[in-house]
Amino acid sequence: MLDEIREQPSVFTTALTENAEAARSIAGALRPGDFGYALIAARGTSDNAARYAKYLWASHNGLTVALAAPSLFTSYQSPPSLNGALVVGISQSGESPDLVAVLAEGRRQGRPTLAITNEVDSPLAAQADFVLNIRAGEENAVAATKTYSAQLLAVAMLSDFWQRGAISDELASAPSLMSDVLKTESLIADIAKDFADLRSCAVLGRGFNHSTAFEWALKLQEVTYALAHPYSTADFRHGPIAVVEPGFSLMAAAPDGPLFGDMLALLEDVSKQRHARTLAISNRGEALEAARYGIPLPAATPEWISPMPIIAAAQLFTYHLGTIKGLDTENPRGLSKVTKTT
Amino acid sequence: MLDEIREQPSVFTTALTENAEAARSIAGALRPGDFGYALIAARGTSDNAARYAKYLWASHNGLTVALAAPSLFTSYQSPPSLNGALVVGISQSGESPDLVAVLAEGRRQGRPTLAITNEVDSPLAAQADFVLNIRAGEENAVAATKTYSAQLLAVAMLSDFWQRGAISDELASAPSLMSDVLKTESLIADIAKDFADLRSCAVLGRGFNHSTAFEWALKLQEVTYALAHPYSTADFRHGPIAVVEPGFSLMAAAPDGPLFGDMLALLEDVSKQRHARTLAISNRGEALEAARYGIPLPAATPEWISPMPIIAAAQLFTYHLGTIKGLDTENPRGLSKVTKTT
Repeated sequence: MLDEIREQPSVFTTALTENAEAARSIAGALRPGDFGYALIAARGTSDNAARYAKYLWASHNGLTVALAAPSLFTSYQSPPSLNGALVVGISQSGESPDLVAVLAEGRRQGRPTLAITNEVDSPLAAQADFVLNIRAGEENAVAATKTYSAQLLAVAMLSDFWQRGAISDELASAPSLMSDVLKTESLIADIAKDFADLRSCAVLGRGFNHSTAFEWALKLQEVTYALAHPYSTADFRHGPIAVVEPGFSLMAAAPDGPLFGDMLALLEDVSKQRHARTLAISNRGEALEAARYGIPLPAATPEWISPMPIIAAAQLFTYHLGTIKGLDTENPRGLSKVTKTT
Repeated sequence: MLDEIREQPSVFTTALTENAEAARSIAGALRPGDFGYALIAARGTSDNAARYAKYLWASHNGLTVALAAPSLFTSYQSPPSLNGALVVGISQSGESPDLVAVLAEGRRQGRPTLAITNEVDSPLAAQADFVLNIRAGEENAVAATKTYSAQLLAVAMLSDFWQRGAISDELASAPSLMSDVLKTESLIADIAKDFADLRSCAVLGRGFNHSTAFEWALKLQEVTYALAHPYSTADFRHGPIAVVEPGFSLMAAAPDGPLFGDMLALLEDVSKQRHARTLAISNRGEALEAARYGIPLPAATPEWISPMPIIAAAQLFTYHLGTIKGLDTENPRGLSKVTKTT
């Protein structure tokens, strides 16, 4: 798992180069203005990449994203009308039958289908008119790391080609942002030691980093067996904030951007008023100070790219915490690399 | 809170009668076939009613539902194209500015807007072309109970009028199903005693009851301060199942239906192989036997209606557990009745 986390800058460099033509061509063939919305089918880690697409494609490309309810297509056999939809499947393995069923129904209704996957010979790819290979290379650890960030990158490359017909300078900086964050590993490993007793926590992120909250929480569940709940800061205020008591652990993806003030206010509230044990990943000094523990991001990280370096830091935190807890970080109990649900 | 839980059968009887004309008229004016999809904006409890609509409107009415990301409309000020969308807001109070912003943008883009709310004079209702009053009456407890089930009923009434131009016999039976479940209160209160030590748990439901998993977990968070996580059974297998260890508490909405076999298999796995402490609400004996604790539903409960009586049972469980824990069930810490997020 640690090797795969550390590989991410080179995976990014490779994908930005080798995937550029494929992403350009797919972006040209499937234009946001030709669709009412995109319907994305995904599970687990890939569903969190879909959450990133929900914000990015909407805000940069004007495309509304709906997350599919696969059981409608399988168990209930009552799929809705997909009139106007671009039907997208995101999956590392491309093997889960419920996701394949969503793309197959898209085809049956005559809608264009796109698979974003690490396995171009998978059943999911076979149902897709277009396939974007995330080119992450083989992933051996059960908990996905480099395949998640490579899915984010693929989603972002499509967005850039839709928006400007080229990769933006901001996205081109992603490999170096990933490298910079990985250099903070010893700080992160030190912080993890202070969470050795972690049994449960909330993980907060909003906007582009709603995805990060879900993926960070999932990694903590898989690798450290902590009961980690993801929330947007807004949803957290609508009820769950009641669970915060002194010593409660709270993780936050807190990059600079339009939502920063809201996140900072929440961090200050739970850290100072409610005495929670807080950890923030941020490129703003105020957040690093408001939280009890802080992991710095490169100052120039654009908010829309920030889910990539933030999850890399969160993966390192999770890996080291699992190791400190004496757990098998490579093969978590009860999980297999490919999960087939129907 | 207990009074409001017990009021639900009469709220249902009233709404089925007094809302019939309004629901019929709205269903006639806004036809699913005229839209590419429905975009629903909601927060907290109301977002869980939106999850119910996501499954019901898709499976019974062919209408794909996307859940809105309100921050795109507020903080980011970059709303996507709503071309083809029916724009819906669900909110008890109708006051949260982020939800109002979604409906306002719908109007700006010339899309039809619908508010489903308990407050017809609210800012949300003011932005809506059509308003469906859920007629739950004033709700005093901070944790929503009757307003949630009344939102489910409103969503179901629209679905019935779309599908058949009338209220189905199945939906007409909802008040008596609610009454029958409330009669099991003493059994539920007894079970709650055995969960007096509950600090954390997973809550499972899938399909129509994906909504129930989220709402039951939210009630447990708000009223008992337990760290309750909602999952679909499929998502649970894609990672989080790793957290289950002996004594782990797991709640399940397990009605008869196409997904029952999958839920039963999971209940048997976690109860017998992993020695979890399980509680199932079900109208199937196998589920009540597989789980350590069972709350029976009326045998004839149709699966698509089951989220209503199941959440009533879950509300009773939550209320009694909060009382047993010595907590203030009427005014949970850190919450207010109306939460305004931007």
